[in-house]
Amino acid sequence: MSGSLAVVGLGPGDAALLTESARRALDAAEDVVGYFPYVARVPERPGLVRHASDNRVEVDRARHALQLAASGRRVAVVSGGDPGVFAMAAAVFEAVEQGEPDWRDLAITVEPGVTAMLAAAARLGAPLGGDFCALSLSDNLKPWPVVTARLEAVLRADFVIALYNPISAARPWQLGAALEIASGIRAPHTPVMFARAISRPDEAIRVATLAEARDVPADMATMVILGASTTRLIPRAGRTPFVYTARKVEEPA
Amino acid sequence: MSGSLAVVGLGPGDAALLTESARRALDAAEDVVGYFPYVARVPERPGLVRHASDNRVEVDRARHALQLAASGRRVAVVSGGDPGVFAMAAAVFEAVEQGEPDWRDLAITVEPGVTAMLAAAARLGAPLGGDFCALSLSDNLKPWPVVTARLEAVLRADFVIALYNPISAARPWQLGAALEIASGIRAPHTPVMFARAISRPDEAIRVATLAEARDVPADMATMVILGASTTRLIPRAGRTPFVYTARKVEEPA
Repeated sequence: MSGSLAVVGLGPGDAALLTESARRALDAAEDVVGYFPYVARVPERPGLVRHASDNRVEVDRARHALQLAASGRRVAVVSGGDPGVFAMAAAVFEAVEQGEPDWRDLAITVEPGVTAMLAAAARLGAPLGGDFCALSLSDNLKPWPVVTARLEAVLRADFVIALYNPISAARPWQLGAALEIASGIRAPHTPVMFARAISRPDEAIRVATLAEARDVPADMATMVILGASTTRLIPRAGRTPFVYTARKVEEPA
Repeated sequence: MSGSLAVVGLGPGDAALLTESARRALDAAEDVVGYFPYVARVPERPGLVRHASDNRVEVDRARHALQLAASGRRVAVVSGGDPGVFAMAAAVFEAVEQGEPDWRDLAITVEPGVTAMLAAAARLGAPLGGDFCALSLSDNLKPWPVVTARLEAVLRADFVIALYNPISAARPWQLGAALEIASGIRAPHTPVMFARAISRPDEAIRVATLAEARDVPADMATMVILGASTTRLIPRAGRTPFVYTARKVEEPA
């Protein structure tokens, strides 16, 4: 088959945070498939068909893209951040596994990108400087008891924790519940970082303590990073402190 | 102070995997500071001073870069992958915290990049499609019992696990010990991915089972990813299988 499918990471928002390889994949595409705000980031040009959809049923979108590729088209499926981190790549491969046998022979590539936690960390300093986890708080595809069991495990093991999908209109209480669990395990002065819309015009950053964190507003565009015991603040006059996680971990008491 | 310091992520190797923003930071630099193979990736040009060092004492390198910036130079500190993930950014902020008070007023920025686990995952399919952790197996700055306690916690909580710094001449046994611990907790058929030198001329990928993993060679340039219970293979005729982690997690039994 002559068609191809590239799953492309658009990074956190600013076009300068795309890789050159991702840019080339977009330039080569005949069809762009994705959630509409991501499709909107790909400039219109003659010969490019843009297929924008809403945020639901990723696997239907993936199937549509694979059908286009199987028909001989050069297709790009676009995701914010990195497509392999809580984004479209897993849905594409799920559709491949469950779909037509010859879809496995398609030229399918993934173009990595700067995922939200890396963009947020870069703006803050180096909060992911030690061992860290990426945990989605969404219980759409994962039972809530699994979320809390995983959260407790990594809280106790002193990982820095990047919380993806912290909150949405349909999931209003999960972030509060997660912070409550964290408060039972980590010290009240533990830094908690709220990084919203990094690299976009409405970017906003807030560094709080775990004790204050319940009162900090967050939305779907917010990445929440829970510091570890080794996460430190460097105060600066008139500016947000730098945040970093020390590389050295002491012998347990 | 007029100097500046950018901590720049060079990505996994291929120059096309840099962001445009990282490229601009390199183009603007008067001094490049870093481990010599990373400095070598920055093309020579008139007016650019390259300060290459060996792989030790990151904080000395960071201090040197900060001194240059404080003297008014535009400095880039380069790291492979993303500078915030087991790389130079944490060392730079450690040096800021412990250094001259006016270093805090310098224009210090971090340019994120494609870290090794994202590059490896993109090549394999979507193995990081669920919750995942990044854990360094190096016990240079962290006691080995902390490494094993963290590893056991995330193995039991069914995270996908990206192992950074799995092995080196000075640390020859840690990867084997980690795989032994994993074998006691995860099923023998669990996929384990070895992704070496991704995007570089000597790139090599191997997908094994946990039962086979002890016999797969690895080195400093290898990223090892331990699959979760939901990590699946999609066989392909004559090619490495696609690997992805299903987004859906079932209710615990």
